[in-house]
Amino acid sequence: MKIRNFGEFKFIDRIKRGCVVRPAGVIKAIDDDCCVFRTPDKMVNLLTTDLLVEDVHFLREAISPFKLGRKSLAVNISDIAAMGGTPGEAVISIAIPETVEIEYLDEFYEGMRSMCREFEVNILGGDTTSSRKHLVINIALTGWIAEEEVLYRSGARPGDVAFLTGAVGSSAAGLDMVLSGRDFQEAGELLEAHYNPVPHVRQGRIIAGLKAATAMIDVSDGVASDLGHICSDSGVAAVVELDRVPVTDAFRRYCSRFNLDFEKLALHVGEDYVLLGTMPESRAGELKAALESRGCSCFPFGRIVEGHGLRLKMPDGSLREIPSSGYDHFKDA
Amino acid sequence: MKIRNFGEFKFIDRIKRGCVVRPAGVIKAIDDDCCVFRTPDKMVNLLTTDLLVEDVHFLREAISPFKLGRKSLAVNISDIAAMGGTPGEAVISIAIPETVEIEYLDEFYEGMRSMCREFEVNILGGDTTSSRKHLVINIALTGWIAEEEVLYRSGARPGDVAFLTGAVGSSAAGLDMVLSGRDFQEAGELLEAHYNPVPHVRQGRIIAGLKAATAMIDVSDGVASDLGHICSDSGVAAVVELDRVPVTDAFRRYCSRFNLDFEKLALHVGEDYVLLGTMPESRAGELKAALESRGCSCFPFGRIVEGHGLRLKMPDGSLREIPSSGYDHFKDA
Repeated sequence: MKIRNFGEFKFIDRIKRGCVVRPAGVIKAIDDDCCVFRTPDKMVNLLTTDLLVEDVHFLREAISPFKLGRKSLAVNISDIAAMGGTPGEAVISIAIPETVEIEYLDEFYEGMRSMCREFEVNILGGDTTSSRKHLVINIALTGWIAEEEVLYRSGARPGDVAFLTGAVGSSAAGLDMVLSGRDFQEAGELLEAHYNPVPHVRQGRIIAGLKAATAMIDVSDGVASDLGHICSDSGVAAVVELDRVPVTDAFRRYCSRFNLDFEKLALHVGEDYVLLGTMPESRAGELKAALESRGCSCFPFGRIVEGHGLRLKMPDGSLREIPSSGYDHFKDA
Repeated sequence: MKIRNFGEFKFIDRIKRGCVVRPAGVIKAIDDDCCVFRTPDKMVNLLTTDLLVEDVHFLREAISPFKLGRKSLAVNISDIAAMGGTPGEAVISIAIPETVEIEYLDEFYEGMRSMCREFEVNILGGDTTSSRKHLVINIALTGWIAEEEVLYRSGARPGDVAFLTGAVGSSAAGLDMVLSGRDFQEAGELLEAHYNPVPHVRQGRIIAGLKAATAMIDVSDGVASDLGHICSDSGVAAVVELDRVPVTDAFRRYCSRFNLDFEKLALHVGEDYVLLGTMPESRAGELKAALESRGCSCFPFGRIVEGHGLRLKMPDGSLREIPSSGYDHFKDA
């Protein structure tokens, strides 16, 4: 059904159901000029925002509206996780072209709600409008954390160990598979990594609560680029050991089956939404144990050193410089 | 200069200058996965968001980038004002097509910064991306207020007086002038109302601090629609006295010169960004005096009554029903 048969206010009535999943702290949701909510006692606020534009960030034919809804929220939740925070309240802006039907939007919002239920995120408001051609989604998401626990990109120090909370590369392989049309037995696992990433909020909370890490970021642009952000913001350099970078067996088999550039897919594409942190060597055992005892993972894969830039240590022990630049929306345009 | 000669990170370095105008309470601005800030003591948070899409909300040829920047923020600040709050921290998302040059963006951000300086709003982060065709801007803005001072749309009671904090209709006349190409001596004043609205934050704070008003909204969709929101959310009706609705002399002359529908332009178009509130008759004198003693205005123009819907009282004393429906992005599409 066309949304113009529905009207804006009836559409808003439709999407606002099930939006508040954690009523504590919420004073006013939707239906007013602003939403109103409390920051939990002794906490500071986090705020992040992400804009997703059709044909730039996603192809409407390639991702189901349900997964698009989930992923739109996941990328924001992951930014809160990257600071060590707990995600809180979301406001959703959506610009809808005539070619998008109400059934599509129902599934899109159901996808967002399913992600919100899993992470106790409330949808407290937003903006709905029309668009001439492309579907546009913007999410702004708040979160909270004790001030002394916040993990920035800027705290890494020479001697620190760099670690990841999960495997990387599978999302890149999933995207490569979609774009290339390659057929692969374990396609499902790689596609799931690309279309349905799960933000590492629990891992982020464990790490921040322990006050052992020195810097943290989520892997959105790729390990090289995101570790590069930590290095440049911290005024340090890093050495990455390629054979310690965690990848899945399916990823390894995909690269080898099609003779693809393992390094590029594992380090330079991104959208993995695992966390990448640094920690003093003296706390590494404790942090790894804390994560593993709660069913999470910690993979040390590199070392912070003095200087600037990134070097890759190959399995044969040789070292070479690698670019730390990530995806540039304008240069690649 | 093309933005692709610049690159995303150099562009971000360029726009982040001058973004923090009120450092108190700001812990981390820009340059990380989230911004981090405090909510002032004993205050609750407000959050609002607005999405502006080229060719839907604005024509790039018709508004200068400086004023587009100012207005993008003004509409969000106005939402905070409508709750009685103090605006706080903004995150700006922007999707930029190739046809937009860096000089345009410099002026756009300078416009945003000028509005931010006037209202002590910090720009603490955002998202920059490319767009296939249209310029897209999303702003999310936080604010704060003491919980017991928040003014919702839902508190109006029969017997209350409806008031406005400023003249309406001039923005509609300005837009009409642009669309029709009409020539008018006082064009400047009407265009300024449309392209450079000033949110009524000070008025909102005075009204909320006095705890005299029962409901409040900002006039974005037009007096009829926005008073209609208060009525439906409060379960009441209203009578508007047409000859008490505040308009400027320039507006009056524009309508009469071109024989235009005064009622339509004054009540049914909007984008005035003044505040529309309701207050018990017993507090009306006090509230008016409080506003006027601080250089602001208060124009009673109607009455809340039992029932539902809106009626217009004409200068001859006759009453007739008027539609309270506002602009519908989808039905009008």
